[in-house]
Amino acid sequence: MNYHTSKPETESAIDRSIPDFPGAEPIDEKNYFSANKPPPYLSEIEDQIKDFIEVHVKSGKRVVLVTSGGTTVPLENNTVRFIDNFSAGTRGATSAEYFLENGYAVIFLHREFSLLPYSRHYSHTTNCFLDYMIEENGKVEINPQFSDKMLTVLRKYNNAKNSKSLLLIPFTTVNQYLFTLRSCSTLLEKLSTKALFYLAAAVSDFFLPMSRLPQHKIQSQATGKLVVDLEQVPKFLSRLVDDWAPRAMIVSFKLETDDNILISKAKGALEKYQHQLVIGNLLQTRKREVVFVTLDNEDWIRLSDDQAEKAMEIEELIIPKVIEQHDSWINRN
Amino acid sequence: MNYHTSKPETESAIDRSIPDFPGAEPIDEKNYFSANKPPPYLSEIEDQIKDFIEVHVKSGKRVVLVTSGGTTVPLENNTVRFIDNFSAGTRGATSAEYFLENGYAVIFLHREFSLLPYSRHYSHTTNCFLDYMIEENGKVEINPQFSDKMLTVLRKYNNAKNSKSLLLIPFTTVNQYLFTLRSCSTLLEKLSTKALFYLAAAVSDFFLPMSRLPQHKIQSQATGKLVVDLEQVPKFLSRLVDDWAPRAMIVSFKLETDDNILISKAKGALEKYQHQLVIGNLLQTRKREVVFVTLDNEDWIRLSDDQAEKAMEIEELIIPKVIEQHDSWINRN
Repeated sequence: MNYHTSKPETESAIDRSIPDFPGAEPIDEKNYFSANKPPPYLSEIEDQIKDFIEVHVKSGKRVVLVTSGGTTVPLENNTVRFIDNFSAGTRGATSAEYFLENGYAVIFLHREFSLLPYSRHYSHTTNCFLDYMIEENGKVEINPQFSDKMLTVLRKYNNAKNSKSLLLIPFTTVNQYLFTLRSCSTLLEKLSTKALFYLAAAVSDFFLPMSRLPQHKIQSQATGKLVVDLEQVPKFLSRLVDDWAPRAMIVSFKLETDDNILISKAKGALEKYQHQLVIGNLLQTRKREVVFVTLDNEDWIRLSDDQAEKAMEIEELIIPKVIEQHDSWINRN
Repeated sequence: MNYHTSKPETESAIDRSIPDFPGAEPIDEKNYFSANKPPPYLSEIEDQIKDFIEVHVKSGKRVVLVTSGGTTVPLENNTVRFIDNFSAGTRGATSAEYFLENGYAVIFLHREFSLLPYSRHYSHTTNCFLDYMIEENGKVEINPQFSDKMLTVLRKYNNAKNSKSLLLIPFTTVNQYLFTLRSCSTLLEKLSTKALFYLAAAVSDFFLPMSRLPQHKIQSQATGKLVVDLEQVPKFLSRLVDDWAPRAMIVSFKLETDDNILISKAKGALEKYQHQLVIGNLLQTRKREVVFVTLDNEDWIRLSDDQAEKAMEIEELIIPKVIEQHDSWINRN
């Protein structure tokens, strides 16, 4: 779980069990954190975040919280089935690298086993980890075909590690995500305007309150039907803007599949939550174009055909533009 | 997608879009394959399977189809949300290795990005691929701390690759799984009793028929509620036993969280589908004990404290016992 641990572990660090939930009142953004239980490991993570922020209060670096990957909604207490949001974590992991290269320290709050900065170049391939290796004189070596690129990536990774500029924090369920986001936010308030929130995670809109979770795996009924009756996840962006980190700059994402509603949904979010920037994108074209939406402006960012052909990543264009706006935010406040 | 491809690819080989679905009649095991469209890549996979079976008709090896990981049920046509079954693919990936070590050829039908035989020892760690590497004199090398074990694993992997004994076939949705299972089964019938089915995948019981899939991402309503009304996935085990591969031996798995119903559910499946063996396991204890259930017997297999302490994998006990039963099946038929 900690980026600075040297020995890779083979088991998940996240406890998949769900704590008991006492009541059955309707859940909103005011009672969510009293009505739901924090993940058992939260205080351990808070300590890591505090240490990380201390390092960068001293280093003088700006700190960005990048959220990445999809949250799950368990449908059973002993979880066999869950609802998930499609997200490999490409946007978040790629963006984190460009923030690091632009001098930011990064807290990477990510869905466990989704793409990570740097390792993303080698994980989640359709082939196998071991295809990068060969045996040479009774020793495992990196296949020379891959070793040049791997050296470049390894150096960047070690640079982030050695300068303590990257902290990896995992989540799986939407409940774990919300508790951890709140902890991060209130701790990052210490950095005032130098804190940036880059909320690229795909957070569930709907969930099943703990009070209504069945204990065991749902059994097929004779009728052959299953009806899952979900409630809306409270929206916490206004709490983040108003209470948790009011001096930080906040960037949220809006992913749609219907291009007719993208801009209006983005503007709706800005009006409702009063934060600084929404980056809109369509599922179908999200790797080639995004739109920066503010209350009075829409600014499309697109890879040119030439850039797309060279496999340039659109995050290389997005991050400098976000940083420009963060510059202004710091200067204005 | 193909095990024999040398160059790792960074993008998914699976097309995530869902073909149009014409009608809205109720779906059962008789009309499923006419009412739903096959994945566009299916014929390519069938060619790979045919080639693989040809190799092992000649090599004389038995062939086991191991299914592994969970299937998804998309809730939207342009998929943002889906229901998933919790499964990392540990049982399947580990079992595949022990089948290979016991002389079987393995078709590994797995959820894309779930654990794979051999690479599982290094993927899905809570740390990073790059933690296994160091820079030494301007070259990337394997960290000596990990190189001995990695050499052992790499040799086994290369052995499977060079003897063409392992074919990796991915799926994501339950529809992709069902079409591919049918193709595998009918092709494996050529091997008669020497084919074994080891169905360890966590297949969804419920799905949303394509005719009722909304085109775009489901929007939050003012009521704040979302009701997902799912139908039962038709059961295909009887088709497999009766029609697709009637001479093969078939082993299915039953995962429950409630130990009071495990045995009765396993026996119920045997009576209903008339196959040879159900391996029962409980979510909570699945890595330490399983139960082999036949119509007249229950045989618990457990790791001893000593074995558990040495981190022995229970699949090392399971696979030889399954192979014993496959021996008898071949001799009897």
